[in-house]
Amino acid sequence: MSERTERLYFASDYMEGAHPAIMQRLLETNLEKTVGYGLDPYSESARAKIREACQAPEAMVHFLVGGTQTNATVIDALLKSYQGVVSARTGHINVHEAGAIEFGGHKVLTIAEKDGKVTAEGVEHCLMEYWKDDNHDHMVMPGMVYLSQPTEYGTIYSLSELKEISRVCHENGIYLYVDGARLAYALACQENDVTLPDLARYCDAFYIGGTKCGALFGEAVVFSNPKTVPQFFTIVKQHGALLAKGRMAGIQFDTLFTDGLYDEIGENAIRMANQVRAALRAKGYEQGIENPTNQVFLIVDDATQARLCEQVELAFMERVDDRHVMMRIATSWATTQEDIDRLIALL
Amino acid sequence: MSERTERLYFASDYMEGAHPAIMQRLLETNLEKTVGYGLDPYSESARAKIREACQAPEAMVHFLVGGTQTNATVIDALLKSYQGVVSARTGHINVHEAGAIEFGGHKVLTIAEKDGKVTAEGVEHCLMEYWKDDNHDHMVMPGMVYLSQPTEYGTIYSLSELKEISRVCHENGIYLYVDGARLAYALACQENDVTLPDLARYCDAFYIGGTKCGALFGEAVVFSNPKTVPQFFTIVKQHGALLAKGRMAGIQFDTLFTDGLYDEIGENAIRMANQVRAALRAKGYEQGIENPTNQVFLIVDDATQARLCEQVELAFMERVDDRHVMMRIATSWATTQEDIDRLIALL
Amino acid sequence: MSERTERLYFASDYMEGAHPAIMQRLLETNLEKTVGYGLDPYSESARAKIREACQAPEAMVHFLVGGTQTNATVIDALLKSYQGVVSARTGHINVHEAGAIEFGGHKVLTIAEKDGKVTAEGVEHCLMEYWKDDNHDHMVMPGMVYLSQPTEYGTIYSLSELKEISRVCHENGIYLYVDGARLAYALACQENDVTLPDLARYCDAFYIGGTKCGALFGEAVVFSNPKTVPQFFTIVKQHGALLAKGRMAGIQFDTLFTDGLYDEIGENAIRMANQVRAALRAKGYEQGIENPTNQVFLIVDDATQARLCEQVELAFMERVDDRHVMMRIATSWATTQEDIDRLIALL
Amino acid sequence: MSERTERLYFASDYMEGAHPAIMQRLLETNLEKTVGYGLDPYSESARAKIREACQAPEAMVHFLVGGTQTNATVIDALLKSYQGVVSARTGHINVHEAGAIEFGGHKVLTIAEKDGKVTAEGVEHCLMEYWKDDNHDHMVMPGMVYLSQPTEYGTIYSLSELKEISRVCHENGIYLYVDGARLAYALACQENDVTLPDLARYCDAFYIGGTKCGALFGEAVVFSNPKTVPQFFTIVKQHGALLAKGRMAGIQFDTLFTDGLYDEIGENAIRMANQVRAALRAKGYEQGIENPTNQVFLIVDDATQARLCEQVELAFMERVDDRHVMMRIATSWATTQEDIDRLIALL
Repeated sequence: MSERTERLYFASDYMEGAHPAIMQRLLETNLEKTVGYGLDPYSESARAKIREACQAPEAMVHFLVGGTQTNATVIDALLKSYQGVVSARTGHINVHEAGAIEFGGHKVLTIAEKDGKVTAEGVEHCLMEYWKDDNHDHMVMPGMVYLSQPTEYGTIYSLSELKEISRVCHENGIYLYVDGARLAYALACQENDVTLPDLARYCDAFYIGGTKCGALFGEAVVFSNPKTVPQFFTIVKQHGALLAKGRMAGIQFDTLFTDGLYDEIGENAIRMANQVRAALRAKGYEQGIENPTNQVFLIVDDATQARLCEQVELAFMERVDDRHVMMRIATSWATTQEDIDRLIALL
Repeated sequence: MSERTERLYFASDYMEGAHPAIMQRLLETNLEKTVGYGLDPYSESARAKIREACQAPEAMVHFLVGGTQTNATVIDALLKSYQGVVSARTGHINVHEAGAIEFGGHKVLTIAEKDGKVTAEGVEHCLMEYWKDDNHDHMVMPGMVYLSQPTEYGTIYSLSELKEISRVCHENGIYLYVDGARLAYALACQENDVTLPDLARYCDAFYIGGTKCGALFGEAVVFSNPKTVPQFFTIVKQHGALLAKGRMAGIQFDTLFTDGLYDEIGENAIRMANQVRAALRAKGYEQGIENPTNQVFLIVDDATQARLCEQVELAFMERVDDRHVMMRIATSWATTQEDIDRLIALL
Repeated sequence: MSERTERLYFASDYMEGAHPAIMQRLLETNLEKTVGYGLDPYSESARAKIREACQAPEAMVHFLVGGTQTNATVIDALLKSYQGVVSARTGHINVHEAGAIEFGGHKVLTIAEKDGKVTAEGVEHCLMEYWKDDNHDHMVMPGMVYLSQPTEYGTIYSLSELKEISRVCHENGIYLYVDGARLAYALACQENDVTLPDLARYCDAFYIGGTKCGALFGEAVVFSNPKTVPQFFTIVKQHGALLAKGRMAGIQFDTLFTDGLYDEIGENAIRMANQVRAALRAKGYEQGIENPTNQVFLIVDDATQARLCEQVELAFMERVDDRHVMMRIATSWATTQEDIDRLIALL
Repeated sequence: MSERTERLYFASDYMEGAHPAIMQRLLETNLEKTVGYGLDPYSESARAKIREACQAPEAMVHFLVGGTQTNATVIDALLKSYQGVVSARTGHINVHEAGAIEFGGHKVLTIAEKDGKVTAEGVEHCLMEYWKDDNHDHMVMPGMVYLSQPTEYGTIYSLSELKEISRVCHENGIYLYVDGARLAYALACQENDVTLPDLARYCDAFYIGGTKCGALFGEAVVFSNPKTVPQFFTIVKQHGALLAKGRMAGIQFDTLFTDGLYDEIGENAIRMANQVRAALRAKGYEQGIENPTNQVFLIVDDATQARLCEQVELAFMERVDDRHVMMRIATSWATTQEDIDRLIALL
């Protein structure tokens, strides 16, 4: 197929396999024999590196396979049977996890959001509404807050926002958990001031996304305080989330946290996304939800959409009005300068 | 490290990465861009090959990540909310899945077994006990039978046994499901007369194990009748079992079902296990549960155990009496003739 | 205690025991010996009378103990494991059942409401949003609609509204279920044109409330088509909702459906509520949510609230603004003309 | 119907309504207005009396409706999500609760029993098997022991047996819970040396049965240490087990614990059962499971069964052999001397 006619793919950030460095490590170690279930030396090494990156020397780190699985398992582990999880209405757990949280017996208590973000005030209001209701013993008790960094819409929480939400949670005796499915892309953008040590410090649990950030699969859950959840290993097993050949996740995270690969992966995606943003502005496109990470939203009329989609695969977000739609361009660790140049030329 | 001092590993059949042919394919396809969630061409190709191998052209085939996850998801998908699953007391779902079946709300209804196998009579007795009990409306209704082929103890069901259990299930309007975590090792042994088409014909669902049979991870669930479970995709997602980069499983199974690789993997393990069996007999060892697949059980006194374990990693099964224990030697696709020769020399 | 100082109680409609006619029947039959679990002649007779009142000769009728229990059990029985229930945001199942629906594994899919009521358009919109979403296989599938008649706010659905919602449900292959915790009070009000036969005809399941309508406890679930839910008895047992001395519910419903007692109970409450409404209007009070059933909502300033509450127990609904609150006056089968006269004198 | 031909009923101990003293109290209080959900003065009074009877002044006492519901709610409240409950294979929760425990996500871990009773050794063995298994992190952790007093077969635990089981539980950090569905009949028999204060002292939770011991319905759960389960009220609501008119249970237990009524109820049943036992012995009948409470088991040939059942309703237990069956005679608070005389005459 000639280069000119080759289709471009910007629909999502998980269309390839893994970063070549990861493939290399998997290949090199392939015939080694190790124990299973994450007790192998590679998983241990990955844990140590993540603890160091998080400046959380006591942290308990577990590797799970995918995002929905991780959310369901961690939320179930943190909540009492009678508690629910507070989330933005647009939160992944509320909309796109096929009821995995409810399958575990817990209600998602939705609160208002703006561009995917909730506020400390919103959380506080939700808690106050619960506690001041005379019938709160007949209601689902909020037991934790779920955020994602970045959010579904690529927006990010600032450190002061995170600290404020953390304060509200802890003053009210509930947990704070951050879904970092695309964390690399938050960490790498210039606007971000929330570091891994900040997450470890202000959250009770969070996960460092692998699947959407360069791994074949895998998410690294971090509990800063290792005593937060006893028997987490068994809970993971009970949720069908325990990988027999656990080292597959360990090797991947060990690689991601060696020589700054996780940072590099994020940086590439941001650099590429920012070129797209600049081009869109220059060409007079209307952008959808403004955000600094690897997802660029643009609002186009139907004719433009049809024209673009002939040559580029984009994600459809929603119909804006009778004649316009919102589309998404996602960049990743795998996006090349050549891809971007070709995309921009088409815009 | 000199050969003499290098430790031997026979503790389990999932201590390595993947068969080199699989690694090769993953590497070759690594930078291709495909859609996620198993809708990619590799997964489609793998499904087609599995359907053909099973002579089940209509079959619905899904790829999940691990065994416990697969069992929990399939059992939950097949049962009504008020039904339970009939299993050998020693069944994996009853003992070693951390309550994953009960987490989904279902009781495991245990029946007697011999060397891990149940009988058609045992199943029939269980069903009859239920239906003839005046209080059966207050009891958990048996909704399906769970078998594994091979069983936890390496034993296998003959075709006539499988047919008989299948007949009892279907005459009683309940499902039959077979856990094939180590299916390659059953298919490859000479004593076996149950083929993939037999499984597709006599079971409502079964899975072809990848994790323990040469893949990095992955299990292929086959529902011969695609209408058996509507919305299985959503059920998989709800269980946190849907792989975002679904092609990782697709590529692996596509490779396993190309040029007879799945057969070859099984055959290597059986050839090696049979050499061990012959050596044990020749050297006068007492074997534990006799079986024709890739797990060899031996009963040794404590001194022998201590001596062997200095140089070989074996799995501890159980204490037999004050002075004897049962150990397991597991072979796999990755076991080499050299490993076996060294092991036999040590026995 | 002198009449002048005796406190008045209008906080709810379940503050007494049972209608005297029910107590009388329980007493008369107390020493009779019958089989348990609702298989006794009194339960059979009650079922027959309910079937007749509903003009649904084939209907399956079961007696449960309370409302939350009934909702959780029926919803669980009607939904597939991967489905959720569509409800008004203010629906009892969404707010005041402590997560009982999620405990059974199902998401409550909330839609907009006005004064507690949803519309056929609202339901249709929710279904369309689901089906047109490219990712709906990753989402919770709407499997039924939950209404209450009357609603939490005393409002009622008209027959044309019910028919329209029923049409939308059935054209989309989902169930319609009506929570009739206070059904007597809807049936009895002049504005109502939805009869028991209408409910049986247009809903797949509904329940006739006992607890809030004159019984000690008990709710009668009606499935017009007895084949809708196989093994409902076992599902009830599994939910801990099966009454050992089932005839206690049977006798109560048999009495309620003898000589028009259920109608009479509703009528008394409505007559009393309407007198309160007229008096509130005459005295210039602002009413909260206007509705024709047994709950009267009034908005008062703090001073008035304080004054009233010295002598009358009212239910606090919510703070309207800095100086006003919404309170509820609930009448019941047990409200006497004397109570009402005294209340009106105090207003 | 003449007395001679009137059928006798000995099939179970819950065939009537309630003890007349309870009916009287319900009638007297019927029109009083109280708050709901067990917060009324009658429930408070009943709680105080039960605390006193148990010599457990701090105990948390809640009233639920039925036995299966109580077991499911208490077990769910006591266990962590990854734990299971240890029970005799014959335990009610394992056999006759339609999977209510598994519905809550927990496995019933069965151990051997004799005549319905387990032993401290049996419990200890089960715990040891778990902890010594190298794979116990992949297994369901025992989190509590479930006993019933009396058992399904009318047998009772002695104080020394209870103390020993309690010791094993608490040394292993797990809970002990006793199902007292028929507790009155254990407390009243001469052989019994386990008092209510003993139960309060040696168990973490137990329930005092109402339904089978003279109430219309109702079971009183006692947690000696009120801090054992936070938010139990909400857990009860979530399980659909919260009675709106909570005082109905309160009044019944208040009456049962006034003037020794609960004792008297038990004593009547035991006195009657013992007369049956003596008559059976005298007439040469073979008794089934020997026990001192209100259930008498007898083994009869088919002809005798047919003859007896013409005039007496007995419960069928099981077929013993080709020609014999085991039947049950249950006495209760309601059994009269005349009933017993007529029964004995028929034997």
